[in-house]
Amino acid sequence: MIKLGIVGGTGYTGAELLRLLARHPQARVEIITSRKEVGMPVTALFPQLRGSLELEFSEPDVERLGACDAVFFATPHGTAMNLAPALLDRGVRVIDLSADFRLRDAASFAQWYAMPHTQPEWQARAVYGLPEVNRAELRGAQLVACPGCYPTAVQLGYLPLLRAGVIDPQGLIADCKSGVSGAGREARVASLFSEVSESFKAYGVPGHRHWPEIQQGLADIAGQPVGVCFVPHLVPMSRGIHATLYARLRDPGVDLQALFATAYAEEPFVDVLPPGQLPETRWVRGSNLCRIAVTRSADGATAIVLSVIDNLVKGAAGQAVQCLNLMFGFDERSALALTPLAP
Amino acid sequence: MIKLGIVGGTGYTGAELLRLLARHPQARVEIITSRKEVGMPVTALFPQLRGSLELEFSEPDVERLGACDAVFFATPHGTAMNLAPALLDRGVRVIDLSADFRLRDAASFAQWYAMPHTQPEWQARAVYGLPEVNRAELRGAQLVACPGCYPTAVQLGYLPLLRAGVIDPQGLIADCKSGVSGAGREARVASLFSEVSESFKAYGVPGHRHWPEIQQGLADIAGQPVGVCFVPHLVPMSRGIHATLYARLRDPGVDLQALFATAYAEEPFVDVLPPGQLPETRWVRGSNLCRIAVTRSADGATAIVLSVIDNLVKGAAGQAVQCLNLMFGFDERSALALTPLAP
Amino acid sequence: MIKLGIVGGTGYTGAELLRLLARHPQARVEIITSRKEVGMPVTALFPQLRGSLELEFSEPDVERLGACDAVFFATPHGTAMNLAPALLDRGVRVIDLSADFRLRDAASFAQWYAMPHTQPEWQARAVYGLPEVNRAELRGAQLVACPGCYPTAVQLGYLPLLRAGVIDPQGLIADCKSGVSGAGREARVASLFSEVSESFKAYGVPGHRHWPEIQQGLADIAGQPVGVCFVPHLVPMSRGIHATLYARLRDPGVDLQALFATAYAEEPFVDVLPPGQLPETRWVRGSNLCRIAVTRSADGATAIVLSVIDNLVKGAAGQAVQCLNLMFGFDERSALALTPLAP
Amino acid sequence: MIKLGIVGGTGYTGAELLRLLARHPQARVEIITSRKEVGMPVTALFPQLRGSLELEFSEPDVERLGACDAVFFATPHGTAMNLAPALLDRGVRVIDLSADFRLRDAASFAQWYAMPHTQPEWQARAVYGLPEVNRAELRGAQLVACPGCYPTAVQLGYLPLLRAGVIDPQGLIADCKSGVSGAGREARVASLFSEVSESFKAYGVPGHRHWPEIQQGLADIAGQPVGVCFVPHLVPMSRGIHATLYARLRDPGVDLQALFATAYAEEPFVDVLPPGQLPETRWVRGSNLCRIAVTRSADGATAIVLSVIDNLVKGAAGQAVQCLNLMFGFDERSALALTPLAP
Repeated sequence: MIKLGIVGGTGYTGAELLRLLARHPQARVEIITSRKEVGMPVTALFPQLRGSLELEFSEPDVERLGACDAVFFATPHGTAMNLAPALLDRGVRVIDLSADFRLRDAASFAQWYAMPHTQPEWQARAVYGLPEVNRAELRGAQLVACPGCYPTAVQLGYLPLLRAGVIDPQGLIADCKSGVSGAGREARVASLFSEVSESFKAYGVPGHRHWPEIQQGLADIAGQPVGVCFVPHLVPMSRGIHATLYARLRDPGVDLQALFATAYAEEPFVDVLPPGQLPETRWVRGSNLCRIAVTRSADGATAIVLSVIDNLVKGAAGQAVQCLNLMFGFDERSALALTPLAP
Repeated sequence: MIKLGIVGGTGYTGAELLRLLARHPQARVEIITSRKEVGMPVTALFPQLRGSLELEFSEPDVERLGACDAVFFATPHGTAMNLAPALLDRGVRVIDLSADFRLRDAASFAQWYAMPHTQPEWQARAVYGLPEVNRAELRGAQLVACPGCYPTAVQLGYLPLLRAGVIDPQGLIADCKSGVSGAGREARVASLFSEVSESFKAYGVPGHRHWPEIQQGLADIAGQPVGVCFVPHLVPMSRGIHATLYARLRDPGVDLQALFATAYAEEPFVDVLPPGQLPETRWVRGSNLCRIAVTRSADGATAIVLSVIDNLVKGAAGQAVQCLNLMFGFDERSALALTPLAP
Repeated sequence: MIKLGIVGGTGYTGAELLRLLARHPQARVEIITSRKEVGMPVTALFPQLRGSLELEFSEPDVERLGACDAVFFATPHGTAMNLAPALLDRGVRVIDLSADFRLRDAASFAQWYAMPHTQPEWQARAVYGLPEVNRAELRGAQLVACPGCYPTAVQLGYLPLLRAGVIDPQGLIADCKSGVSGAGREARVASLFSEVSESFKAYGVPGHRHWPEIQQGLADIAGQPVGVCFVPHLVPMSRGIHATLYARLRDPGVDLQALFATAYAEEPFVDVLPPGQLPETRWVRGSNLCRIAVTRSADGATAIVLSVIDNLVKGAAGQAVQCLNLMFGFDERSALALTPLAP
Repeated sequence: MIKLGIVGGTGYTGAELLRLLARHPQARVEIITSRKEVGMPVTALFPQLRGSLELEFSEPDVERLGACDAVFFATPHGTAMNLAPALLDRGVRVIDLSADFRLRDAASFAQWYAMPHTQPEWQARAVYGLPEVNRAELRGAQLVACPGCYPTAVQLGYLPLLRAGVIDPQGLIADCKSGVSGAGREARVASLFSEVSESFKAYGVPGHRHWPEIQQGLADIAGQPVGVCFVPHLVPMSRGIHATLYARLRDPGVDLQALFATAYAEEPFVDVLPPGQLPETRWVRGSNLCRIAVTRSADGATAIVLSVIDNLVKGAAGQAVQCLNLMFGFDERSALALTPLAP
């Protein structure tokens, strides 16, 4: 039984880590921190967890966290890069769900997150936590940068096409849709029920922070620069991301279905749907799955990939646990054998 | 590993049974029937189950079902009473999620369900599947009649008050609210998204079929007739029941919190909330829990109980599995140790 | 064309006043204030109003507001009682949508709103803005206190019963359900989409601020004290209130349908539904209507009234415009001849 | 006062026509037909209309309909083409909201709607009812084919770009999202609340019936063939369409904002948003407006247009009334001066 800590446990990602880890057979959350809620039982804030775990929020304390085997950061950007090094120096494995270590380029980080990166060395050493791309590296990783929710859905959707070289890596269009929980549990007018329900909108056009991460990740997969136009939208639902991905086919004759089936044949959490079936976000709700369909436009010239995840699970907490499992040599499915909840 | 059958697997209750039973360590679903979908893989209808189980819908067949250890009926009323006896005669245990065996009185069944009861003997022998009331009887039961969703929330809410005799059993008011999945997966205009969302209404006033069941169940608990006014409402959400229960207190000085805490101290699936906390249906979503708060009106004369369940789990499939566990001597929590999904 | 001012225009009530008044044939909004948004065009905050009106938020200024014929207050409680007197002294008619002048008793106000009332004289002189009760007084009113949303639905529901004396005025139970816009446009975690959607809960048990207002209003109607138990609930929808009202009948033989039909025969905004039809909140969405059904419990002893309004219209801005129309002798329906929007 | 008839009045489009026309100063609905609901008052099916109009459903009868000045068809495809000619022969103007006369090519109709077109002559003579494109032709039209909801949003979004010739007319991508009311008021499992809420999906890839209509309409606007990839998605909301439109810019230096502002300067129902503001579907809810923003991708190579309408108003009933106004020389805004309802 390894000991886990969670820094920043009052958001949706923190709560989801608790939900998942409460059933982990080889790991136990012993510390969860929140400066604002010190001393409050976790179940007072998240009563859905009553009966699943007993724990109180505490101050983030390097000594106590340093006694953990692994620590998750479920914090806004800017926190992990300052606190994690002291833990890493003590030999703690760190899994960062924030954006601090996702971009390898310090200048890019500074540009998109409006603050300098204080740990460029760790930034360079962090392993990007997308198991379908970096499984081997994750096994030995000390610091893992978990991907953003949109980048997870987009990269898993384009991966087979880019690896096989069957699409033009320029002119990619990623039209993405997210549930509201992606905006976090902060009190914001724009996330109020009465602002969001019965409505649909795009946002962050152009200029969402996940765009440089997507560009970086797809370029890594393709082995060359890519050009992607990324437009995120807000859906009146709590959970779920749906990525609709377009790419011009170099070879219209390629068997896209077989390409995807082969690419993901061994992946425990990527499900390629049979021809004709299009994914719905409810089919992954509460689970760590990414379900994908691939098809093409009426004229055959454009590949269309539909990729869905639960943004709080495969897009955040679940993927973090998957990384934990790899880092510690556990069964990759530990705590993640979850059947989606529908309806 | 016992063998299970499910008759009528194309509704929400059938799908929920599959979700729960896919993780049962001592039981396996081997047969699921649907006359309409014979030969179709279950995952074609319910893709959320892809990776959780492989099974095809088949014709309901007494010989094949007769080889099961237990058979669930997730059918409209009128089916189980005709098919179950042949299975019971073969020694199969039957857990009926429909209304066929809930009412002990054949005349009452005929009145409310507009058909004669064809099996009055089995009707009399069926055990009402509310473990918090009938745990001992369920252990040896051959035929279990699972309670309706509203009756579950209402009975668990009134139980401590009626047992203790602290309320007037006449003049009870049960103002209940349900998500739309309670209306089933039939194609009905009244259940369309565009008819239900952004709206709220009462329905079935007076005359809902769960009313005689509530009257019968509360009278059993109270040991005397009760008078209850039951008004169901439809909430624009998929899952969840919230019962707001009113009763005139005979003894305004009674410690209601202690009364409830004691009554449910040993119950694995009933959670009495601490004073001041009021339940929300999302705190039980996807789980077999009933969470309850008890308080009183400003003038102290009226007890107010707030009781929430997931109508598809504790209100249907989960309670059925709980009954199965009792009938076969399994741990009562098997397949039901589920943390609610929120948001 | 009279000149109107609105103090506090950045909430849902303020926006709704603008929507309604933009079509008023005899009145024009000339001033809308917001300390926070001075200089911002109204349509930058509420783009739905683009094309309907052009106006900028300005500082609340007594001189400029004093030049209006009438001023609406759509502010949190505590503002109107301090600013309104200076306007009233200048002969401006004031229509207050906040709680400042609803309770006639200063001590009760102080208790429920946690602040002393600074204008007890005006508090005593204010006319309670429920036209179905106070139409004559409203015609000459200088200061109108618009009812709260719950109190509107509850009073209109009980009115025919109390006036006719056919129910016991003690032991009333008002089980009420509201959409989320009732909580306002403040950034609050409890109003976030991901906290509210797919869930249902009670709140404010016991102790909601609308309770003393309901007690006062029902007592006025009944001509004697009443005892009401009021439980509000939150529905995952933006607009709408549904009140389910229970009362013990003194005379079980009374013709409830006729009683209601007669009571509201001349009312332009109260619609008594035919027997058997139960109201849905979508049937009044966006309109100033209150639709009501009356029935009774299975045993005939309890009257059950179902009353629905749009909380932002008949429960707030629409009723305020209705009061304006009465105060200035306009057609009571001016700007309010709105067909509900469904779906 | 002209006399109107509506054939097929039990769907959302029919109900929306009634809502709008109830306030028309120069036209009155005198007949509404439904074979299934003959004799039923319209308000029994659509109680939201109580107080707005009194009318009963009747059999579709050529004699009675022939006495109208104009008849709307709000029927499934296949009805209007058989019934309309007899009315047209009597001099009745016909406004068809179904798909029967949208495609000019009989073979294309037969391919996409799986039935032969029985009226190829009328098919060729019908005027396509998009006032922003065909205003002059609509003034004298006898038969109008109202555009589909998706085609309306897509054509209005691409129009300024195609007219100005600043984009490559091949490789267009129209990623569209619709609320559930677009699927109609039929009882279908796929439109149930519990199937749709808290989920998001694409559908009809490739092969939606609106695709050939979009291709035809854009080609008409461009004066040359276009190539468009159209992917519709279902949003868990009732009303609203959001089209996200991509096109490769031929001249990256073009001032897109000015182009759109100029193109729509005189249009009463197209609102070009100021730079930086992105449309939300709630900003047009219940109104006949199309609100549009135009921007470009991070690399400047791709134009991105965001176009929103209410699918039941500008996408159906409102546009039909706009056509009626043009056909009869009324003010184009008659019955359509509606402020959107938000929240």
